Amino acid sequence: MTAGRTRVDAKRLINFSTKALQKLGVPEEDAQITARLLVATDLRGVESHGVAHLNRFYARWIRSGVINATPKPKIFSQAPSTATMDGDRGLGFVIGHRAMMEAMQRAEKTGAGFIAVRNSTHFGAAAGYAMMALEHDMIGIAMTNTIAGVIAPESTKPAVGTNPLAVAVPAGKKTPFVLDMATSVVAGGKLEIARREGTSIPEGWVVDKEGGPVTDPKKRVRGEGGLLPLGGTPKLGGYKGFGLGVLVDILTGVLSGSSAGIIWVNTRENGGLGSGDHFFGALRIDSFLPVENFKKSMDEMIDAFEALPTLPGVKKIYVAGGPEAEIEKDRKANGIPLNPKVIQDLQDLAREVGIEYDL
Amino acid sequence: MTAGRTRVDAKRLINFSTKALQKLGVPEEDAQITARLLVATDLRGVESHGVAHLNRFYARWIRSGVINATPKPKIFSQAPSTATMDGDRGLGFVIGHRAMMEAMQRAEKTGAGFIAVRNSTHFGAAAGYAMMALEHDMIGIAMTNTIAGVIAPESTKPAVGTNPLAVAVPAGKKTPFVLDMATSVVAGGKLEIARREGTSIPEGWVVDKEGGPVTDPKKRVRGEGGLLPLGGTPKLGGYKGFGLGVLVDILTGVLSGSSAGIIWVNTRENGGLGSGDHFFGALRIDSFLPVENFKKSMDEMIDAFEALPTLPGVKKIYVAGGPEAEIEKDRKANGIPLNPKVIQDLQDLAREVGIEYDL
Repeated sequence: MTAGRTRVDAKRLINFSTKALQKLGVPEEDAQITARLLVATDLRGVESHGVAHLNRFYARWIRSGVINATPKPKIFSQAPSTATMDGDRGLGFVIGHRAMMEAMQRAEKTGAGFIAVRNSTHFGAAAGYAMMALEHDMIGIAMTNTIAGVIAPESTKPAVGTNPLAVAVPAGKKTPFVLDMATSVVAGGKLEIARREGTSIPEGWVVDKEGGPVTDPKKRVRGEGGLLPLGGTPKLGGYKGFGLGVLVDILTGVLSGSSAGIIWVNTRENGGLGSGDHFFGALRIDSFLPVENFKKSMDEMIDAFEALPTLPGVKKIYVAGGPEAEIEKDRKANGIPLNPKVIQDLQDLAREVGIEYDL
Repeated sequence: MTAGRTRVDAKRLINFSTKALQKLGVPEEDAQITARLLVATDLRGVESHGVAHLNRFYARWIRSGVINATPKPKIFSQAPSTATMDGDRGLGFVIGHRAMMEAMQRAEKTGAGFIAVRNSTHFGAAAGYAMMALEHDMIGIAMTNTIAGVIAPESTKPAVGTNPLAVAVPAGKKTPFVLDMATSVVAGGKLEIARREGTSIPEGWVVDKEGGPVTDPKKRVRGEGGLLPLGGTPKLGGYKGFGLGVLVDILTGVLSGSSAGIIWVNTRENGGLGSGDHFFGALRIDSFLPVENFKKSMDEMIDAFEALPTLPGVKKIYVAGGPEAEIEKDRKANGIPLNPKVIQDLQDLAREVGIEYDL
């Protein structure tokens, strides 16, 4: 943890964020949904997608009219397990939450539910939606497209977004499996953090327009070079990360009736929004096998991974979601350590919308 | 193409493989399904998973009784969109084909279909099953677990298999999107080819038990070091590739009622089989939006990727499935170039089962 941070209570942060969003014209329930998802992300240590964006992204976009604070999303369904949704440019959190609920309702009835969403906006971290499935004993899936920042293998220009995909799977006594990964080597948010903290980035994350390595996160200019896809160079499997990024573009953009990111970015007036289309899925575990058998088997698997031998100096092998669960435990007990720049941003927001900064 | 190869006609190779499998006790229809899937893989240039395995893997396992040549797979279904299947240790091709048909029948009715399969055997390349969805205007998904050969980040011992996942998506005039990727840096088959061809492997594919690089493919010993997950080192996202590998273990092993690979490998008598559990899925495109809109949008996307600027010396940017489609076109016209060692193997097989080697 960087020095100079201040621990802030999660519940107070949710209340503060809810009030600020309400002042911006978001209905109370929608404001609560959004605030909870944002703060849940900070609790899990994913600071690139939490309240740091509240003023910088969401408040600004609501004020400028890019985000519709009172959307009327529409569902189009031709079959019991699937549907598309038009998000009416609502807050991505509100639309995402609604769509994931729809996917789970379909899984409740048929075993599987899948919703492709167009015309939404930036929805924060994908894990929040996938994790909604956990308490229902379902496997949850969430993906979103984002503005192109990732270079296709052997090209020089960004072609797909960091296009994250998240999958959450319940366990028994063990921490749930929660994989939330950009399909690039790193998420754009990690560059944002490096810029905010003034640190350099490792070789292999970003290349310039000649394909050479970039280690200064401030040097990156959109349209010239960009992030590498997961895998990195073609020889080490970069085409796989790129393929996963294209797959996310297909399921979010093409299948929802929007379009693939590479088209979307060039043609759609998106007012600077980082993402617009999503894909959500739910699989009901007890439609495959008894939930208790499944959870027992998950626990055995996680125990076996955690018992693996480690390289010297490494304490423990983690399964996806494990490190975030440990951070969450600490932050629930001791508060979320906010960066001074984020606190400044929230104080500015409080002043602008006319609420007290009481964190 | 390596010198010394012989071009063999695909249809003759299917007929030969069918006859050989029938002689081994596989019923005619099942033998045809298997032969077609094997040769389709060679046609697409994926030589690591084609007829090179016919004698070395499948014939051997049928003879030793590890594979049941006349399986009676059972389906257990609790909901309209989902089911588990027990493969009765049948040939993975036969079980996989049957399960993918079941997934598509469910998608036909509800929009989505998912089948988790336990107690199956090595099914070859995952793409073959995902691609079955293409002619039905569905998105097809296929995954399988494999014997652990991939190191968890910061560990020293293989923990998950190369656990491939494949997704096939139809396009209009353009080549379909077909992503078929091991969740490791490379598939085990690429090591097998390097060993067969006597070539070295690049740094970043395999590490020894101290985490140091291995470039001689023959040096790799099971249980000591292994393949790196997609992404490579933790700093470059290796935990993402590992997370995807674990996800495949969950959907194939845990959800089917078998168990995760890390348990399965230690406890199950699998007689050297490379895989046992699968997961198949199908999404009916017209349950989301009209198929013609979807395909038009896919074509536009692929055109946009193919129009991307390239690094010097690179002719074209490919979308997943593009290179394989070009190889397939050549091989359908001019035959499949078989390695002399593979030909020797097929001649041995012909002699052993008492059929003519007529390729």
